Amino acid sequence: MTETVHNWEDHGYLATYIKKNGSFANLRIHPHGLVLVDLQSYNDHMKGREEVDQLLNKVEERMQELFHGNIKRVKRLPAILRGGVIDRYWPTADGRLVEYDIDEVVYDEDSPFQNIKILHSKQFGNILILSGDVNLAESDLAYTQAIMGSGKEDYAGKEVLILGGGDGGILYEIVKLKPKMVTMVEIDQMVIDGCKKYMRKTCGDVLDNLKGECYQVLIEDCIPVLKRYAKEGRMFDYVINDLTAVPISTSPEEDSTWEFLRLILDLSMKVLKQDGKYFTQGNCINLTDALTLYEEQLSRLYCPVEFSKETVCVPSYMELWVFYTIWKKPTDI
Amino acid sequence: MTETVHNWEDHGYLATYIKKNGSFANLRIHPHGLVLVDLQSYNDHMKGREEVDQLLNKVEERMQELFHGNIKRVKRLPAILRGGVIDRYWPTADGRLVEYDIDEVVYDEDSPFQNIKILHSKQFGNILILSGDVNLAESDLAYTQAIMGSGKEDYAGKEVLILGGGDGGILYEIVKLKPKMVTMVEIDQMVIDGCKKYMRKTCGDVLDNLKGECYQVLIEDCIPVLKRYAKEGRMFDYVINDLTAVPISTSPEEDSTWEFLRLILDLSMKVLKQDGKYFTQGNCINLTDALTLYEEQLSRLYCPVEFSKETVCVPSYMELWVFYTIWKKPTDI
Repeated sequence: MTETVHNWEDHGYLATYIKKNGSFANLRIHPHGLVLVDLQSYNDHMKGREEVDQLLNKVEERMQELFHGNIKRVKRLPAILRGGVIDRYWPTADGRLVEYDIDEVVYDEDSPFQNIKILHSKQFGNILILSGDVNLAESDLAYTQAIMGSGKEDYAGKEVLILGGGDGGILYEIVKLKPKMVTMVEIDQMVIDGCKKYMRKTCGDVLDNLKGECYQVLIEDCIPVLKRYAKEGRMFDYVINDLTAVPISTSPEEDSTWEFLRLILDLSMKVLKQDGKYFTQGNCINLTDALTLYEEQLSRLYCPVEFSKETVCVPSYMELWVFYTIWKKPTDI
Repeated sequence: MTETVHNWEDHGYLATYIKKNGSFANLRIHPHGLVLVDLQSYNDHMKGREEVDQLLNKVEERMQELFHGNIKRVKRLPAILRGGVIDRYWPTADGRLVEYDIDEVVYDEDSPFQNIKILHSKQFGNILILSGDVNLAESDLAYTQAIMGSGKEDYAGKEVLILGGGDGGILYEIVKLKPKMVTMVEIDQMVIDGCKKYMRKTCGDVLDNLKGECYQVLIEDCIPVLKRYAKEGRMFDYVINDLTAVPISTSPEEDSTWEFLRLILDLSMKVLKQDGKYFTQGNCINLTDALTLYEEQLSRLYCPVEFSKETVCVPSYMELWVFYTIWKKPTDI
């Protein structure tokens, strides 16, 4: 083992210990008493990890001896696994480090629009991750229920428009409720291809055909479709916006995210019946600035609207999520 | 900046860069092409973190240049914050690293039985952590509902025994349902003291007095209480075991966790009416071995029992949790 020691004048010291097998450890001692030990090794198998644990036990014991038991706090964090085929770390929307119990890469492809991953989690089932963003897991019926109005709506005989929703979750659940017609507009055929194969618990068989008795799926950018419907005067009882948080579109006309969001909202309101409802996901509850900005957009639409919001626990998100219901302000009679 | 480089014969190389301000970086290059960069600095404020982000942006750009854009995958993880007053890392029962949005230490005391922490999370409210184990957050009504039978039970006019439950959540919810009498047996007065002050959303005012119109709280080890009740022939409609996963008891007679669990179960069955129900939390859904072992204990009780289980998403746990319902096997008529 090779030892290298660096002494700062005012900042304590750093010792690096290098082993012949390629592993190494840093021991960083700060003058105010904080001691950080990092061990880095290259192991593919659990055996290596057990050895590391035993080594750390010994380090901890020795430290307790050296400090005569005067250590106030000891905390050992689980090892961070990097560089393998399986990436277990998908930070939350509010930037926290969370490790998932992912044990298999089920699907990993780049579409013309985004990177599409479907990863298997032992507890959540398959998880759809679009461009690094956890979208939906097979465990997340709570998401689909929330964006459909939390069971308080009667979809029977209704006209429904879904924007995005390529995982098929919303479509699958609404079709069960005997709507008149559901139109889903999803830009990315490859999301549908991946989900119909690997997100079966979410979409059932609804994506096996792009057309059913009471639904159709259009593989298109929703902006021109919305414009067409608005022009034709086609109206819906429900518009459900399930687009990704970071917008993708073939229309280059809108530069900023907020302008794009407002365009979608304005167009959606144009095709929404006077007593219709618009449902969408908002953001993680901790991103209060983003939520406030979103609500400000709602006061800037072509027609006055009102809204309510609900906070829901979506299992695979590991953070609470806000969902919005928006409707046209009733006109004076 | 000081640079130290170590070359292994077969394991690539490690460069350490040390800055005058006490921060340092490791650059570990493995022969098969994995490059790991770790930066460690001592910063109390966000400004330092922004600087670190900018530095890492530059490192990433430079790496892309050096490799002529031939980098297959780049992943940057959020910084791990160590050594501060606030500890944001409370690994899951299945050993995963998860970061909580904790911004305040509300309560931190050692009782004769355990360490009691109540930490504030922006999204989950206050979280009770007993000896490092996340017990319950103010957001976790789902836990209390699950361990009460998920809304399928009628507690009106019933005799209920709660084992543990010091956060007051179960007691608070059951008292609303007009039971005949609820007896709660909690060993640790300090848990009650902390929770009645800082877990108000969970326990309401129910812990303000240890006795109410239809409830009493006994500050005792539940083992002797159960033995006393069994001897007296006192029977309950519901027994709810909300004891901590790792048992604490003043009775030294039971060595192993499983023996202790079986003792509790046996004694609970003795005070449970023939048509009564016993509810308890099991474990995280991924710990299948522990769940199987628990279920094996159920076949080794003094009387035959049957059970069902349910998997529930408890918001602050960041993993799915299994709850059990156990009842005495109906006798032949």
